[in-house]
Amino acid sequence: MSQFQFELSHRDASTSARRGVFLTPHGPVQTPGFMPVGTQGTVKGVTIDQVKETGAHMILGNTYHLALRPGHETVRRLGGLHGMSRWEGPILTDSGGFQIFSLGAINQVTEEAATFRSHIDGAEVRLTPEHSIEIQESLGSDVAMVLDHVVALPAEPGVVEDAMARSIRWAKRCLEAATRDDQAKFAIVQGGLDVELRIQCARELSSMNFDGYAVGGLSVGEAPSEMYRITAATCPELPEDKPRYLMGVGTPIDLIESVARGIDLFDCVMPTRNGRNGLAFTDEGKLKLRNAIHKEDTRPIEAHCPCLACRHSRGYLRHLFVAGEMLGPILLSIHNLTYYQRVMQGARDAIEQNRFADYAREKKAGWGIADVAEQPGA
Amino acid sequence: MSQFQFELSHRDASTSARRGVFLTPHGPVQTPGFMPVGTQGTVKGVTIDQVKETGAHMILGNTYHLALRPGHETVRRLGGLHGMSRWEGPILTDSGGFQIFSLGAINQVTEEAATFRSHIDGAEVRLTPEHSIEIQESLGSDVAMVLDHVVALPAEPGVVEDAMARSIRWAKRCLEAATRDDQAKFAIVQGGLDVELRIQCARELSSMNFDGYAVGGLSVGEAPSEMYRITAATCPELPEDKPRYLMGVGTPIDLIESVARGIDLFDCVMPTRNGRNGLAFTDEGKLKLRNAIHKEDTRPIEAHCPCLACRHSRGYLRHLFVAGEMLGPILLSIHNLTYYQRVMQGARDAIEQNRFADYAREKKAGWGIADVAEQPGA
Ligand SMILES: [Zn+2]
Ligand SMILES: [Zn+2]
Repeated sequence: MSQFQFELSHRDASTSARRGVFLTPHGPVQTPGFMPVGTQGTVKGVTIDQVKETGAHMILGNTYHLALRPGHETVRRLGGLHGMSRWEGPILTDSGGFQIFSLGAINQVTEEAATFRSHIDGAEVRLTPEHSIEIQESLGSDVAMVLDHVVALPAEPGVVEDAMARSIRWAKRCLEAATRDDQAKFAIVQGGLDVELRIQCARELSSMNFDGYAVGGLSVGEAPSEMYRITAATCPELPEDKPRYLMGVGTPIDLIESVARGIDLFDCVMPTRNGRNGLAFTDEGKLKLRNAIHKEDTRPIEAHCPCLACRHSRGYLRHLFVAGEMLGPILLSIHNLTYYQRVMQGARDAIEQNRFADYAREKKAGWGIADVAEQPGA
Repeated sequence: MSQFQFELSHRDASTSARRGVFLTPHGPVQTPGFMPVGTQGTVKGVTIDQVKETGAHMILGNTYHLALRPGHETVRRLGGLHGMSRWEGPILTDSGGFQIFSLGAINQVTEEAATFRSHIDGAEVRLTPEHSIEIQESLGSDVAMVLDHVVALPAEPGVVEDAMARSIRWAKRCLEAATRDDQAKFAIVQGGLDVELRIQCARELSSMNFDGYAVGGLSVGEAPSEMYRITAATCPELPEDKPRYLMGVGTPIDLIESVARGIDLFDCVMPTRNGRNGLAFTDEGKLKLRNAIHKEDTRPIEAHCPCLACRHSRGYLRHLFVAGEMLGPILLSIHNLTYYQRVMQGARDAIEQNRFADYAREKKAGWGIADVAEQPGA
């Protein structure tokens, strides 16, 4: 029996939202769930205890970054990602496909490999599906993602279809290359904004025995409504009994909309990146802590938030940012990570109570967003 | 009865080291003790819980910085330094004298006031002894320092004597200006590297009823032996029953040498500043974490250190610095602050056991420093 199980415990009555738990060798992941991003083996600005206190169950590491620096063999010798970071829960690593696309200057993608230049020192690097799996096995993550071929959108239909077809062949090679039983393999559905390609890709990948399925190549500049449309069309084509992961997404509203369409897992740098820039997510929308209006405001960001930042006044947090103190980015990263976890905890509770549509409406009203026109069917 | 008491519980048998406790409205400070520096209302890179976990009893805030930004009236409206930072223990604020000397471009020092240009926006600011106390009362610290006139060394004897005499007159004005019973006032002995001036200053200040006495104007570039010489000459002239504070000092060896000469309190930015730069203090001397030698070293900085950083390998910490991750500076700041507290805890234990000279020898042997020629008498 696999060391990985996905137990679906409840379906929301009026949306496609699902409540489940994904079991891994390093513990359970409650879904829907959000993974903080630890690109280089650390969630930026936050100690691993603080990550845990935000309520996160699983974190993400980046194969591309870690393979370039410090190198996956070094990570392995230092005890893998778990040994290095001291994170005791599950870890998911991406495959490098998206980072090659967004950070590395791609020289060439052939059927055999992607060749690119490192964003650190310009060195030429060659990545095959087999090598991506080998790296992820060295990193020791609980979940490895297959190497996929991501293309910039908009693109010619032929280009998107070609990359989608190659991603399926690469997914198969990843599955065949894997040697570790204690590492789940997740496939990635590609196909750009073309629903037919997405459905074809989802069906072909579903016929292979992956432990989970991701929707990739989105959140790359397309309109949110496009992303929701593709997600809504893809989810029904994926196995019911496997977790579904929407990669690199997104804003709180994106999470809510995508949960409503059947997504179980998310990752995004937004909570930490925005936190470092002085922007706090709240139930009443975003708060720019640098604004002069907060100068002598004794209220916390959110009175009901249990995080470290919310023990302090907005005035103090503003002072930290204006004075250029590290504690500002630290505290706001913690608040935003906590906020994302609170949104997901609320989503899980709402699904169990068959009131996810109400929950989504309440959240959006707080954020000042009109209710969505395009609500997916149950 | 004063809200401040200094209880001297033990004197070391063979050095001038003293073991005591300084009682404040926000709790006791075990001495000898080291205060982490929270210049702008935060110990750089470290949450207030983490500061507490290092073992610190009292922290320091800077009047100069806080008066310029966010402004002491803003600090007061945000609940004072305690309310802003959520530090529940005692806080000491300096007077601004040293920062005007080192950061602000001094325009003029008259008998009435020091006039300088802000290092932030170049605005002209005027600081009198009375204003320094008013600011510190707004900040709400447990201990206020008197405004002193610091001069660069070396200086003409007349200049040093003049500044010393003015510092005494300003100290008196501070004492007279103070209105809060819940804020201790510490005098500052000046006099450059001239023992006679130091003794004269110490005696005159001792005749006034301060709650504690600082040795100021040192650690400004002079040789450590000069600093030790001045400290050794000054301490015997200060009241036995009041805490003695050596301002802005120093390295671990400086702390040990100064405790041996009768100093009770220290503050310094070295643990955090060096931590941010990748340098760790250890019982075996300094460790440069960026060095390639640490790349695959699975050992912690110090196996017996209880801090957060020492749960991780040197290899991981090196990776964080090489990759430019905030967590590197955060963890090394925590280690160094913890290290300083461990050195001071060891000093307190050694004094109680009449073995401070042995403790100093052991520490120096570990740091690779030959035993001091100039050992002060018991
Ligand atoms: Zn919060
Ligand atoms: Zn340590």
